Amino acid sequence: DPNLKVFTLNSNKTLAQEIAKVIGVELGKCSVDRFSDGEIQINIEESIRGCDVYVIQSTSAPVNEHIMELLIMIDALKRASAKTINVVIPYYGYARQDRKARAREPITSKLVANLLETAGATRVITLDLHAPQIQGFFDIPTDQLMGVPILADHFSNREFTGDIVIVSPDHGGVTRARKMAERLKAPIAIIDKRRPRPNVAEVMNIVGNIEGKTAILIDDIIDTAGTITLAANALVENGAVEVLACCTHPVLSGPAIERIQNSQIKELVVTNSIELPEEKRIDKIVELSVAPLLGEAIIRVHEEQSVSTLFN
Amino acid sequence: DPNLKVFTLNSNKTLAQEIAKVIGVELGKCSVDRFSDGEIQINIEESIRGCDVYVIQSTSAPVNEHIMELLIMIDALKRASAKTINVVIPYYGYARQDRKARAREPITSKLVANLLETAGATRVITLDLHAPQIQGFFDIPTDQLMGVPILADHFSNREFTGDIVIVSPDHGGVTRARKMAERLKAPIAIIDKRRPRPNVAEVMNIVGNIEGKTAILIDDIIDTAGTITLAANALVENGAVEVLACCTHPVLSGPAIERIQNSQIKELVVTNSIELPEEKRIDKIVELSVAPLLGEAIIRVHEEQSVSTLFN
Ligand SMILES: Nc1ncnc2c1ncn2[C@@H]1O[C@H](COP(=O)(O)O)[C@@H](O)[C@H]1O
Ligand SMILES: Nc1ncnc2c1ncn2[C@@H]1O[C@H](COP(=O)(O)O)[C@@H](O)[C@H]1O
Repeated sequence: DPNLKVFTLNSNKTLAQEIAKVIGVELGKCSVDRFSDGEIQINIEESIRGCDVYVIQSTSAPVNEHIMELLIMIDALKRASAKTINVVIPYYGYARQDRKARAREPITSKLVANLLETAGATRVITLDLHAPQIQGFFDIPTDQLMGVPILADHFSNREFTGDIVIVSPDHGGVTRARKMAERLKAPIAIIDKRRPRPNVAEVMNIVGNIEGKTAILIDDIIDTAGTITLAANALVENGAVEVLACCTHPVLSGPAIERIQNSQIKELVVTNSIELPEEKRIDKIVELSVAPLLGEAIIRVHEEQSVSTLFN
Repeated sequence: DPNLKVFTLNSNKTLAQEIAKVIGVELGKCSVDRFSDGEIQINIEESIRGCDVYVIQSTSAPVNEHIMELLIMIDALKRASAKTINVVIPYYGYARQDRKARAREPITSKLVANLLETAGATRVITLDLHAPQIQGFFDIPTDQLMGVPILADHFSNREFTGDIVIVSPDHGGVTRARKMAERLKAPIAIIDKRRPRPNVAEVMNIVGNIEGKTAILIDDIIDTAGTITLAANALVENGAVEVLACCTHPVLSGPAIERIQNSQIKELVVTNSIELPEEKRIDKIVELSVAPLLGEAIIRVHEEQSVSTLFN
């Protein structure tokens, strides 16, 4: 369909290439550069008048640069008479600022949703939002895809040292762990962190049976990797025979790589929702592509079919 | 007035301190940091419920960081029940992307205006917009102050080698040069760049009498300093006895400092609308403060008086 155009900005160029291949189109011609003073310079180098345009950009680090690139691109597309402007955001940044945890905090997640709409986005396609409520921050159609099936597939039909158990590193991730467990026909366990008294170190209590088992930790985001590596170590101390981990969004900031390297985690499985720079591509990390999932979603959205069956 | 609060973000902390002093208040308590992954973390550390809040932030380099800091701060203030949110933007970045110079370009200047309103700004106070039309991009009250009086004051009552002439480096700046000339009771000249044929170097033609005179170049923005240094050299070649230059906004990116250092410009006078980092503070550059101007404007806006008399 000549009216379907896919553009990429700077966050995920490799993924965007793969998505274009899945859809069977070439990426739209466009340059996204910087002027001498650091201001973003965007040139769309082909007509998109009357087209359904899909723009691929994660709001990963450098998050503020990536958000501004996306907003400016949407503005340019709108002024160039795109029929629809569909933003494909594999990793939606600022998702942890989704509520006022303290007085006078911003709700940046909601702010960014408003900014995208103000710029002119007409639809959002995204993957594993940190909180399901974020979908409600948008007043435009927002399709949320799930990373669990891709991660689960990677672990199925493999031999492990022990029987597997899926472990959530905290209470917030239990629903996700259960979905994974259902796919792998495995039981779940939960790490229950408790601070016995104020100013006393947290105790890692494990709810569920992990003894002699291969534990697979699952989270949506791994950022500084503090939670996940402490959890892995606690699992081994409590009798797990090996620990693997997986997440959809490998933020991996600050001490993350060093912590993972030095932890009990044997293998960390992530998706390419965030592009890993060379220095983060260590042997322990396995990267899976979300291109088939996102490509298929774009095709279905374009043909006005349901995307919900993509979750099965 | 306890209902008047002034906050600063990260672009112009020194200027903000000076403005607070002019007004006679302490800066509001607030921290503007980064999480490990680069996301902005803002904490407003005092109540601003029912207050008239003034936030000082130039959208200078790193422009995208500074814009996002400002938007997130506005969001936090709005949710904390500020009565009014007045953004003081001494330098309004992206001002040169104020029209479609080519097909399918964004109009980022207008986009940023929309973003500020969406976040919740209720008024803008700014200085020397690159184009007067930008004021019309806002649907909220927007006061534009002028840098010319401050720059002109610096040159008045001084002895120069020759009689002075105010020079505009291009046609776009003639109005500004004329305002300066009126204040200094001096004549004007204009540099008329022409490309005789395509692919032939531009010729610097000078309209007006500069021979034996002290030429003072004036522009609103000096970015890479190509225009202004070529102009200075052309003025000397054509008989000016000395060349000084001034601008409101010292963007000074890329080769700017080196070019100025190696040029015929004897003295470059700028304002602190953009904070100069240490490595740009060379002997030739004289910095003037806009704190008295902005401080006075804030007082008048707060007392609902006209700011137009500030231009005289
Ligand atoms: N980029 C970030 N990095 C680390 N912590 C964050 C970030 N953004 C927000 N937070 C904090 O994370 C907490 C929410 O995380 P969660 O409980 O996982 O939803 C809040 O206290 C936020 O202040
Ligand atoms: N940050 C920037 N640095 C250099 N040139 C720019 C920048 N932003 C926009 N422009 C270009 O500058 C021209 C407008 O400048 P002016 O004619 O001075 O208004 C347009 O061609 C823009 O594409």
